[in-house]
Amino acid sequence: MTDFIPTDRTQVHRLPKRGVYDRETVYRILDEGLVCHVGFVADGKPVVIPTGYGRKGDTLYFHGSPASRMFQTLGRGVEVCITVTLVDGLVMARSAFHHSMNYRSVVIFGKATLLDDLAAKREALEVFTEHVAPGRWQEVRQPSEKELRSTTVLAIPLDEVSAKVRTGPPLDDEEDYALPVWAGVLPLELTPKTPLADDRLPKEIAIPGYVLAYSRRHA
Amino acid sequence: MTDFIPTDRTQVHRLPKRGVYDRETVYRILDEGLVCHVGFVADGKPVVIPTGYGRKGDTLYFHGSPASRMFQTLGRGVEVCITVTLVDGLVMARSAFHHSMNYRSVVIFGKATLLDDLAAKREALEVFTEHVAPGRWQEVRQPSEKELRSTTVLAIPLDEVSAKVRTGPPLDDEEDYALPVWAGVLPLELTPKTPLADDRLPKEIAIPGYVLAYSRRHA
Repeated sequence: MTDFIPTDRTQVHRLPKRGVYDRETVYRILDEGLVCHVGFVADGKPVVIPTGYGRKGDTLYFHGSPASRMFQTLGRGVEVCITVTLVDGLVMARSAFHHSMNYRSVVIFGKATLLDDLAAKREALEVFTEHVAPGRWQEVRQPSEKELRSTTVLAIPLDEVSAKVRTGPPLDDEEDYALPVWAGVLPLELTPKTPLADDRLPKEIAIPGYVLAYSRRHA
Repeated sequence: MTDFIPTDRTQVHRLPKRGVYDRETVYRILDEGLVCHVGFVADGKPVVIPTGYGRKGDTLYFHGSPASRMFQTLGRGVEVCITVTLVDGLVMARSAFHHSMNYRSVVIFGKATLLDDLAAKREALEVFTEHVAPGRWQEVRQPSEKELRSTTVLAIPLDEVSAKVRTGPPLDDEEDYALPVWAGVLPLELTPKTPLADDRLPKEIAIPGYVLAYSRRHA
């Protein structure tokens, strides 16, 4: 895979060593995330809305209702900025000033296009479903033509993209290392809890393996 | 606490029953989150950047480096949209179409102002530190005047704000309840893992209780 070429917008200026432009790292972050934050300009002012997404190849798909004002606006081909952030840990330094977080984030700039073709929409819905739970698509009822028509799917090419990553321990001022203050990293992870079967589910239907062994960290 | 009054921007139009305007619910979401997504307009185009934050009373504070282009832009009093999203679970329906997520999100519109006063900046840094780990501020080295001067703190009033919340099981089409497909909710939670002490930490310094018993779910 070829690396992203930094543009004026995606070049990481602050702490440039945190900037990442290789597609493999960027796509691993996108594939681990569940929610993206879509930014666009409405009446000259910024709007940021969270929504689900999925990636296939060099395209990010996101979807919503045709009645949503956001998707009406975005479908007109306006500029968007889509950001995905994973929080990996709290970085606890010996000074208040050097506290930080370990994180991985991806910022995507571009224009979204509406998918009109029903087959393309169906494929995007498969991408969404498999993004959330790999293996799920084959088990569930597939979308009807009516459902496909009442889903708005937007696609954005993964061209102008960068990631920012912080890892590792706190970095304290040299004289602060002598302070009697606990310092280190508290790792954080989005973790599945006990699955809650739907009240109307017959007892004989077992929990699928991909739910029981659920993890956002893909091999 | 008085409820937020929905404006044209904060009124939830799509699925209005998910809209929440009471301050207590909104502030509980803000207090549980760790990262906000700050949207602003640069050269007519949207930019969305993740950053840490803290809340005190009816004000949200966020901070960065004076060298950051984002904070230079925001300090000029431009319009921002700040969004905080908590993912609570995957909603697995019997049809692909009705898959969803349980989530709580808050959207804030307004103009940020720069804090200039050093005492106000110090108080904001206390808010950040206590937001991440209540109890931490009193243990760590407090910020020097130089550190306060080299931190940009922005404040935004919590006036034009709304939340959106989805909870509960999947809602399937009536005829799909007969399908032999597992359906339910897989709850997700940002969970602490084993704390990693800094390599240079003397062994006699114990892990603080607020790290050992860390949780984002405040009582």
